[in-house]
Amino acid sequence: MNDLKGAAIIGQSGGPTSVINASAAGVFIEALKQKNITRVYGAAHGIRGILNEEFYDINQEDIKELELLKTTPSSSIGSVRYKLKKLEEDDSEYRKLLEVFKKYNIRYFFYNGGNDSMDTCNKISKFFKNNDYKCFCMGVPKTIDNDLVVTDHCPGYASAARYIATTFMELRCDATVYDTPLVLVVEVMGRNAGWLTAAAALAGYKGLGPDLIYLPEIPFDIDKFMDDVAKKYKENNGNVIIAVSEGVHTKDGKFVPELASENIAVDSFGHKQMGGTASVLADLLKNRLNVKVRPIEFSLLQRCAQHLASKVDVEEAFNAGAEAVKAACEGVTDYMIGFKRVMKNGKYTCEYIRVPLEEVANAEKKVPLEWITKDGTGLTQDYIDYALPLIQGDCKAPLEEGLPRFAKLKKILVDKK
Amino acid sequence: MNDLKGAAIIGQSGGPTSVINASAAGVFIEALKQKNITRVYGAAHGIRGILNEEFYDINQEDIKELELLKTTPSSSIGSVRYKLKKLEEDDSEYRKLLEVFKKYNIRYFFYNGGNDSMDTCNKISKFFKNNDYKCFCMGVPKTIDNDLVVTDHCPGYASAARYIATTFMELRCDATVYDTPLVLVVEVMGRNAGWLTAAAALAGYKGLGPDLIYLPEIPFDIDKFMDDVAKKYKENNGNVIIAVSEGVHTKDGKFVPELASENIAVDSFGHKQMGGTASVLADLLKNRLNVKVRPIEFSLLQRCAQHLASKVDVEEAFNAGAEAVKAACEGVTDYMIGFKRVMKNGKYTCEYIRVPLEEVANAEKKVPLEWITKDGTGLTQDYIDYALPLIQGDCKAPLEEGLPRFAKLKKILVDKK
Repeated sequence: MNDLKGAAIIGQSGGPTSVINASAAGVFIEALKQKNITRVYGAAHGIRGILNEEFYDINQEDIKELELLKTTPSSSIGSVRYKLKKLEEDDSEYRKLLEVFKKYNIRYFFYNGGNDSMDTCNKISKFFKNNDYKCFCMGVPKTIDNDLVVTDHCPGYASAARYIATTFMELRCDATVYDTPLVLVVEVMGRNAGWLTAAAALAGYKGLGPDLIYLPEIPFDIDKFMDDVAKKYKENNGNVIIAVSEGVHTKDGKFVPELASENIAVDSFGHKQMGGTASVLADLLKNRLNVKVRPIEFSLLQRCAQHLASKVDVEEAFNAGAEAVKAACEGVTDYMIGFKRVMKNGKYTCEYIRVPLEEVANAEKKVPLEWITKDGTGLTQDYIDYALPLIQGDCKAPLEEGLPRFAKLKKILVDKK
Repeated sequence: MNDLKGAAIIGQSGGPTSVINASAAGVFIEALKQKNITRVYGAAHGIRGILNEEFYDINQEDIKELELLKTTPSSSIGSVRYKLKKLEEDDSEYRKLLEVFKKYNIRYFFYNGGNDSMDTCNKISKFFKNNDYKCFCMGVPKTIDNDLVVTDHCPGYASAARYIATTFMELRCDATVYDTPLVLVVEVMGRNAGWLTAAAALAGYKGLGPDLIYLPEIPFDIDKFMDDVAKKYKENNGNVIIAVSEGVHTKDGKFVPELASENIAVDSFGHKQMGGTASVLADLLKNRLNVKVRPIEFSLLQRCAQHLASKVDVEEAFNAGAEAVKAACEGVTDYMIGFKRVMKNGKYTCEYIRVPLEEVANAEKKVPLEWITKDGTGLTQDYIDYALPLIQGDCKAPLEEGLPRFAKLKKILVDKK
């Protein structure tokens, strides 16, 4: 136990998820309980809010609204995509941060994000230590990409996976309704790791999945892709559903939109019609198969569809925030809360572990190659066994007149000192 | 009451909805109870299944699975887009239908679809009558477009509206998370009527709606659109969310994609195949505002998202099917089941009415112009009052391992006679 008294602040960084607010709720609610934490702040738009001294005063929020954050998608206090400069090149931002922390006596710092954010948190922590400023810095994981190392999985992933699996099941029902050919090419997020696209296999486990799944872990071969689709097209009387990661690329590292650059149509405004992965593949398939091909992009919907959030995910995200506060109050610094899977009598439980920030900063975990079927178009049972326990249970916002009631924070800015 | 004994058949037609199976369940379960109905068939792919003598034997299905149809999206027996030829030009298909009905002694015919389908049902009914074949023909309404006349609203609409409203609320949370400009252009289905796009206003009623809503009821003016967006862009520090119907068109009848390309496919009903409205508008805005503009298409997701189905919608869709069977068994023919809104002490209830098919066939109900705000970019409280009672309650499929358990029909084909 440490007895350092001071304020706590949380910042959120990177793309939103369905449960990033649940982690904030975990930090807020636990921090408000801790005797050594004198004040609780939420940084407006992550690290930029700290640099600009724009914090919300969480002590003035209603506890009921903070509880509602558990089932409110995206980040209520704002997120940011901002990478601090390299310390050895320019330490001015670090010095500014230190000045702000001192001015507001902030002694507990929580940063919620993916591997870039863990790197930021780690750098700040090291800078404070080297400048003899005592501050407990903890990382709280977050990423629908599920690509943080050491931790078994990441908050945000399971809810997105549940959305993807459910939606593929519904699309399978919809797209096979006519007795005429239709090919769907569905694009799923994930630039480097195929975890999100892999979730389409959960729909397949329920008998209503896509016919073909392409992850960025396997080099993308356009001719093989065409052959795969043509084969399924024949087998299924023209109904083919394809899940493709936005990040698939050839072994030379070329992404699909780059591949098609020579064949790109020019519209009457003279603009190049440079769609995403799904639309480019759809165009190529149209020419090849001469049938109706429909590209679909889950786009932002997959990361903010709180109405399909997994209960396991929401609870773990909340607990990750609370555990980070507890660790900091015990005197732990420079760690991230991670998840360890424990199977007891076939039942999944999660243990919260502390992982050195250095180990997670800037590293990336991909889908194991042995979980991808040999033909490169599907996932093995290993993936299903991994993902299924994580997507269990409903945990959506309470309804008010048939629509979700999300948290309404007052967001009172702290007066600048 | 009539005492004509014979088989019943239901066919489904047009684009699927979240509740078209609920109407099929209503027909099946009620028809199985009726003494005069000797056998219950489901036509594989609507009218085409009848012409080809491809029917499923519903008497062999488990009642538990038929009950699960209530919460299974799309059409389990298959739908079709097929328009019979004009009777005066070619009556061969009508004669074939009559032959099939006679062969299987089908005396109860239920056709589930939109205004095209009601026209088909009406024509078949008249042909049978003129050929002295006694058969009770009833229409069961279905369309996410909500454009059938006489009836207050249509099964399928409310569930799609609930999906659209909920998703806009989530998008608002997501797209405003950064302190950098982002314009979202979200395309919603609806060729001629703006009912689906109007549902975005329900999100606005909850404080999380789009800034601008464009319906096809108001002539689309590209310059005004640009000005509207630029104004909101300034007001909102660069965060603008736009809901636009795929069917918006200029006063000369030009659709947005036509402004970019004259190449639009035509489906078998002669409707122009829309889509691309959001991406064309996003491209134009990018050039104009020089910021990040993201087009999003709800695409098929909006019509099959059973996981957000409205309980009111599911129950009414089921009842519409059951009421059609009851009416036919009473000897009613050539009618469609419609909905009459009754407000009792401020509480919504639905009365089932019988509407002559002739009145609904090929007619179309649009959003009343007086429900659209004067600036043409929003909806009035009248629309909210209309739509809100319809989207109440959850009614999603039971979960099995965290994912929906949809109906699994045996779909045993009846032996051809």
